Amino acid sequence: MSIKVGIVGYGNLGRGIECSINQNEDMELVAVFTRRNPATVKILHKNVGVYHIDDILRFKDKIDVLILCGGSATDLPVQTPALAKDFTVIDSFDTHAKIPEHFEKVDAAAKQGGNVAVISCGWDPGMFSLNRLYASAVLPNGKDYTFWGKGVSQGHSDAIRRIEGVLDAKQYTIPIIEALDAVRSGETPEFTTREKHLRECFVVAEDGADKEKIEEQIKTMPNYFADYNTIVHFISLEELHANHSGIPHGGFVIRSGKTGWENENTHVIEYSLKLDSNPEFTASVIVAYARAAYKMKNEGAVGCKTVFDIPPAYLSPKSPEELRKELL
Amino acid sequence: MSIKVGIVGYGNLGRGIECSINQNEDMELVAVFTRRNPATVKILHKNVGVYHIDDILRFKDKIDVLILCGGSATDLPVQTPALAKDFTVIDSFDTHAKIPEHFEKVDAAAKQGGNVAVISCGWDPGMFSLNRLYASAVLPNGKDYTFWGKGVSQGHSDAIRRIEGVLDAKQYTIPIIEALDAVRSGETPEFTTREKHLRECFVVAEDGADKEKIEEQIKTMPNYFADYNTIVHFISLEELHANHSGIPHGGFVIRSGKTGWENENTHVIEYSLKLDSNPEFTASVIVAYARAAYKMKNEGAVGCKTVFDIPPAYLSPKSPEELRKELL
Repeated sequence: MSIKVGIVGYGNLGRGIECSINQNEDMELVAVFTRRNPATVKILHKNVGVYHIDDILRFKDKIDVLILCGGSATDLPVQTPALAKDFTVIDSFDTHAKIPEHFEKVDAAAKQGGNVAVISCGWDPGMFSLNRLYASAVLPNGKDYTFWGKGVSQGHSDAIRRIEGVLDAKQYTIPIIEALDAVRSGETPEFTTREKHLRECFVVAEDGADKEKIEEQIKTMPNYFADYNTIVHFISLEELHANHSGIPHGGFVIRSGKTGWENENTHVIEYSLKLDSNPEFTASVIVAYARAAYKMKNEGAVGCKTVFDIPPAYLSPKSPEELRKELL
Repeated sequence: MSIKVGIVGYGNLGRGIECSINQNEDMELVAVFTRRNPATVKILHKNVGVYHIDDILRFKDKIDVLILCGGSATDLPVQTPALAKDFTVIDSFDTHAKIPEHFEKVDAAAKQGGNVAVISCGWDPGMFSLNRLYASAVLPNGKDYTFWGKGVSQGHSDAIRRIEGVLDAKQYTIPIIEALDAVRSGETPEFTTREKHLRECFVVAEDGADKEKIEEQIKTMPNYFADYNTIVHFISLEELHANHSGIPHGGFVIRSGKTGWENENTHVIEYSLKLDSNPEFTASVIVAYARAAYKMKNEGAVGCKTVFDIPPAYLSPKSPEELRKELL
């Protein structure tokens, strides 16, 4: 008896989910849903159908968990509450400031449908959030820091591409090693934005474009670049494709704290990720939590959950006895 | 309304628990219990009583969670099941091979008494176990490695002290950096014991003792040293006290795994601890889980739990709403 999974939305994340399901023997891909013409969407599994999203309710009794792979800006705020009425769902909603509002809407819908819904699953929010929570609970007298990178920021790459004269671009967020080392040493400095990360951009300009002007527009762009030290390289399209086509990412959550009767001892907890593929790793986290959602639903749980609410054992295909014996 | 805590056993760990309770505003130390003459046990809180363990049942309605700070060899196998009948308890039982047996006994006792019992809490077993579980669930096609140190091994230090001619000794377990780096690079090598850790010993010999013979006895000691590269330094008692009186520890849990349709992408997850005081950090983990035990008991949970069974949110004094807003 395998867990029957449906995927809604087939971009990088949806493809990552498809690959991840393949690595988990207790899971089975049942269907992929798309807003596009299904005939135009080619997936990796030869024997699994692609359907239009309008047909999804026909699968209500054929799917145990529906994994929503849309974007946080406009897709998930609508899709997750809508689908939580009829399915056990999981999403990777990552607009941190809007998580409380998203939670409330999804919780109401999931309760109405008697379903479990997991939101904001991935690595940040997700595994990084977990590490912030565990570390702050264990070392209450301390301070934590999250660093991202080295990795590709899709939002910043897009912002550069919107500049006139830019053909294509890739932006890397890079944590500043001196800041990392200060935190690792047990110090608890206050950093400016500029002191924590730098931004490195690889830009393909149109023939005859004013490169100095493009560079200036990037470096002074509010919110995206103005508060950072930014390095801009102009390269050819061939070079961009050859050396910058991957989607690596990663980062660090570090908390240091004091213990002892007079705070005489210092401890440093560090969690880090080094990822070749941001969407595939995000997908791997989501698939493990899809298993948890399935188990919780089977036990009668109802409503919206986050990584904070889910017992770790639920993520694993192993039994509690096996986990205690092999991993504790 | 604070969580009322009792401590059973007042050594390094019990003292660490006492300090940690002081850092958590929602917790209050109610009593310390000892097998010694209570009059001889001096604790840090002036206004908290020390009682003989035989008087503990008088506190049945005055204590929310009892934290057991005895040893895993002989204390906890008896104490935890015995006390779980009358109290919500938590221990740091760390004999990995005997955890399943300990779990069964404690589970039966806790169910008999209608209590919650948390076992094997600390950093290994504990936070390291959690990281092994999360990482293996997220990257099923991978391999994980646990390295310990640099830190003091009490067991190995004791083993050296039992050698004839040795006055005192301290042994450090040190992870081998080349092995760490290989694992961090995403390789999945098979290591021999000798390739993962080395052992460094600081030994104070009696006047006139045969140092060559002591060194030979250490390096060839089965189970403890024979399978490792071991470095032995002879130092004075003054030097031992001046430079080796701390109890630092730490370590690394690293898992690398592949994702993608053809396993084309590699990811590395690393969790590490750098601890000035092993018992104080262990205590800090236990106190956070004592809060979780209290919450679970209040919600009607019963039986034995480990870190695998406990939703992360239960460790924090913050509400689920605060956690979602601030840490997710």
